[in-house]
Amino acid sequence: MRAVVLHSYGGPEVLSIEEVADPVPGPDEVLVQVAATALNRADLLQRMGLYPDPRKAQPEIPGLEFAGTVAAVGSRVTMWQVGDRVMGITAGGAYAERIAVHERQLLAVPATMPLTEAAAIPEVFLTAWDALVLQGGLTSGRWALVHAGASGVGTASIQIAKAVGARIAVTCSPGKAALCRSLGADLVFDRSPSDWLAAAKAAVPAGFDTILDVVGGEEIDRNLQAVAQRGSIVQVGLMGGGSVQVNVGLLMAKRAHWVGTTLRARPIEEKVAVTRRFAAEMLPLFTDGRLRPVIDCRFTLDEIAAAHELMASNANAGKIVITI
Amino acid sequence: MRAVVLHSYGGPEVLSIEEVADPVPGPDEVLVQVAATALNRADLLQRMGLYPDPRKAQPEIPGLEFAGTVAAVGSRVTMWQVGDRVMGITAGGAYAERIAVHERQLLAVPATMPLTEAAAIPEVFLTAWDALVLQGGLTSGRWALVHAGASGVGTASIQIAKAVGARIAVTCSPGKAALCRSLGADLVFDRSPSDWLAAAKAAVPAGFDTILDVVGGEEIDRNLQAVAQRGSIVQVGLMGGGSVQVNVGLLMAKRAHWVGTTLRARPIEEKVAVTRRFAAEMLPLFTDGRLRPVIDCRFTLDEIAAAHELMASNANAGKIVITI
Repeated sequence: MRAVVLHSYGGPEVLSIEEVADPVPGPDEVLVQVAATALNRADLLQRMGLYPDPRKAQPEIPGLEFAGTVAAVGSRVTMWQVGDRVMGITAGGAYAERIAVHERQLLAVPATMPLTEAAAIPEVFLTAWDALVLQGGLTSGRWALVHAGASGVGTASIQIAKAVGARIAVTCSPGKAALCRSLGADLVFDRSPSDWLAAAKAAVPAGFDTILDVVGGEEIDRNLQAVAQRGSIVQVGLMGGGSVQVNVGLLMAKRAHWVGTTLRARPIEEKVAVTRRFAAEMLPLFTDGRLRPVIDCRFTLDEIAAAHELMASNANAGKIVITI
Repeated sequence: MRAVVLHSYGGPEVLSIEEVADPVPGPDEVLVQVAATALNRADLLQRMGLYPDPRKAQPEIPGLEFAGTVAAVGSRVTMWQVGDRVMGITAGGAYAERIAVHERQLLAVPATMPLTEAAAIPEVFLTAWDALVLQGGLTSGRWALVHAGASGVGTASIQIAKAVGARIAVTCSPGKAALCRSLGADLVFDRSPSDWLAAAKAAVPAGFDTILDVVGGEEIDRNLQAVAQRGSIVQVGLMGGGSVQVNVGLLMAKRAHWVGTTLRARPIEEKVAVTRRFAAEMLPLFTDGRLRPVIDCRFTLDEIAAAHELMASNANAGKIVITI
């Protein structure tokens, strides 16, 4: 099969498209013919050698999510049949024509949704829902604050917050504010270095119950000032830096929770658990149209380097999909 | 009644012993004739004006815990009768001969225990148990790390950890190591600036599931290095400083929880809930001898200034009790 392979780490030029051996599904696994994958910030870090693949896998193929068609099933598989349309997250290997995944880690693609749209769902909707709802305790009536509102995780967060009855504020660059509003954001603030904190305090004086932060850096101190009493800050990324001066007194005075989270490093049982719960609680909302992937643009596998360059430039709003 | 009143903030000399009006119990409250109270670090901060009493109370009487005898009960009280021996936490007012407290916030004093010992139980055992078990998720088999092992919270933590089947390491100054070991600590490390982190990593390579920290300051970076994957750091105090450089990448890589907590600022319903659960889960262990208050020394109410000076000097190991 064709796949993107990393033999060394560096710029987009290290993304080498090659013929490699097909994966062989184990007895509990499904072989998926991949129709599309999508880019994540973690892919860029992995390419640069900063976020190593946790699996023992040779060759090293990036790619954290996929949508496609079941091509073959292992001997113990009961949930899927050849031809079923599926999607899911993986710790790597999705920049490829085929991938083998545990059957319980797969999600059914909603009936009317093209696979090239579905590929934009798994990573950001699972990440946003897990961070906001499962770890951050967001419920109806409560206030969320999400940085990078026009990113993949941001656009998923806005829709999820509204779907569960919560209220949501986001930060983003001025050119992306309209997209965030169109998705349902109640409040949109210019991202730092603008003084979004003053605007946020004026609009939501009691503070935010759940803050999802992919940025870190200078936002960390502001998060601690913006979080409500007994609120949660869920740290999903550190694009803006991770070594910062922190006023821990605020964490105590507010009795706040600050939680670090990643999806990729989780063991199989945790990935299955979060996927199955997502299937029950979120997947139906794609069918009735309350949730939809937000796609910036599509590239082919041969254009993978250009796709990485686009994401690095921060010019995209929503997901960058790669058709295989 | 006689009480210690704060008219201004400063050194031990601002602790003024005066005659003030008796508190009048409301219909759900119990009037307790206080036999003894005990000192907490927060008392010193309050005296210095750094930890204000959250209640609307005039005059301002410090004191966060007490043991005594029921002197009168409000019209709706059902749990207690005049003469019952009780103890509990309060947001203030325990440096006094009498105090009025909601009946559901009181705990029965174990039958054979003198009230002047019982006064050393409520604040540190509730704090340590809430921080380690309820917020920090400590269970049988898991490893706890507690700083200031010979402090009131430290000596309570050691006993609680062993009582629930967990393992515990503590840091303390060398002269207090024997006390920590005698209470059951599995590992005792010299406190910073010694390199306890290296010793802890060697002894518990997978890291600590629950870290209870009353120190903050330079311990914060070490806590993040010492905590296990998916472990919890419960920040109970910041005696060593609260504004520090933090490597947030460690929080993410470990998917760790960092929680700030205080008891005093909690609303009545939370204080009642934690007290009633403590009554069910911890109080029986004082009767069978598995838990006992560790008392450094006793002072009378007239000696309150000297008691504050002793705590400020860090010379005590265990609680400083004030007999009324």
